[in-house]
Amino acid sequence: MPRYKLVIEYDGAPFCGWQRQAEDPTVQAAVEAAVLRFSGEAVRLTCAGRTDAGVHAIGQVAHLDLAKEWRTDTVRDALNAHLRPQPVAVLSAEIVPETFDARHSAIRRHYRYRILNRRSPAALTRAHVWQVPWALDAELMHAAAQRLLGRHDFSAFRAAECQANSPVRTLEQLDVARVRFGLFDEIVVATAARSFLHHQVRAMVGTLMLAGSRRLTGDDVAEILATKAKHRCGPLAPACGLTFSGVDYA
Amino acid sequence: MPRYKLVIEYDGAPFCGWQRQAEDPTVQAAVEAAVLRFSGEAVRLTCAGRTDAGVHAIGQVAHLDLAKEWRTDTVRDALNAHLRPQPVAVLSAEIVPETFDARHSAIRRHYRYRILNRRSPAALTRAHVWQVPWALDAELMHAAAQRLLGRHDFSAFRAAECQANSPVRTLEQLDVARVRFGLFDEIVVATAARSFLHHQVRAMVGTLMLAGSRRLTGDDVAEILATKAKHRCGPLAPACGLTFSGVDYA
Repeated sequence: MPRYKLVIEYDGAPFCGWQRQAEDPTVQAAVEAAVLRFSGEAVRLTCAGRTDAGVHAIGQVAHLDLAKEWRTDTVRDALNAHLRPQPVAVLSAEIVPETFDARHSAIRRHYRYRILNRRSPAALTRAHVWQVPWALDAELMHAAAQRLLGRHDFSAFRAAECQANSPVRTLEQLDVARVRFGLFDEIVVATAARSFLHHQVRAMVGTLMLAGSRRLTGDDVAEILATKAKHRCGPLAPACGLTFSGVDYA
Repeated sequence: MPRYKLVIEYDGAPFCGWQRQAEDPTVQAAVEAAVLRFSGEAVRLTCAGRTDAGVHAIGQVAHLDLAKEWRTDTVRDALNAHLRPQPVAVLSAEIVPETFDARHSAIRRHYRYRILNRRSPAALTRAHVWQVPWALDAELMHAAAQRLLGRHDFSAFRAAECQANSPVRTLEQLDVARVRFGLFDEIVVATAARSFLHHQVRAMVGTLMLAGSRRLTGDDVAEILATKAKHRCGPLAPACGLTFSGVDYA
């Protein structure tokens, strides 16, 4: 059976996250239903990162096995036709070796977080940003972020319900920059690691927000990490600002 | 009575355009209702550009007169509180001379149009882009666009229902560029003029799309303009891709 790798974009707003649930609409269920309508097969997708409710993706990766070897453009276009009008799009489909596993073969996952830093609420982008009404210093945020890079026990930035075996992760990138571009004037956080703990990105962003507000120093952030002082973290940044932006494979 | 200038952002999707209508929801009606709840005054707003149904704004400008001289931050914040949860935000309020008129004092209006140029439908940005599935050449589009600059009779690019006295307009900017930035990989059209005819931007974008598809040359576009050959224009580009991005005043 040929194995297909799909790259998937979705708006997280109407979904209760990626992972199939008994009743609530999820992205996984939407794609699996599209596959059933396309090929008649009841498959189960494996994805690179199970995003939470409200989290978006432009580079989610999933794999599935189908009985037939289809043209990959046909797979992409047919799934997109069956996904309409839901805000889920298959950006590409390719045939990969059976050894490819969307989850276990991933060597790096990328996320972006968008902060709208202004007094007025978001109107045009409200489903895609976290609006922080007071002034944030993006340079302070970036400097504090660098204190989290490397291999650490990230227990301070971990959801209580996180199911990972170990709280140790290696953070490869955590860049914060104020971005003015065309219609956009935002603070964007770009991060990458082999894998993240549950809620890790949103917890780090919430804490960096406090650094940008001058309520935590870089030393404070390093200390929160070292002492696993979850109670000193910032608020969990809302899901709608987060986008799963891509996955690297070897 | 002090006159206030408001800069307004809105998501056009849920509204039947800017202008107040008897029954359908409009941006003007939303803001006027917020003013009524704030100050108790039934005002009529005058705006710089009456956007069509589905068209967005990040820089719409409107003026209104209120009996009292309020702190401008209070006006902004109170209107935003009363506008919730509608996707309309007052970005700023300022007191301006009585001679200021949001419509007649404007010397330049700016619009942007976003084209998602890929085979797969838009998922994350579907309410904000026009998806064109075949390959467009942004350089050809830009070259053709330059043929429309200057003072011309734009009858070819005018809606049948346009109420302007004259079809003559002076197009100051019409730039087309492929933009890859963070999450965005789009073709963006940026245009500016003192004023535009009804549907002019969307009609120009639809025609430039044909130029980018190699179905019209730059000479063809110049000829369509010169001969007012409306039947040779491209399709009217959909409203959702258009954003009213700003207004210049003397």
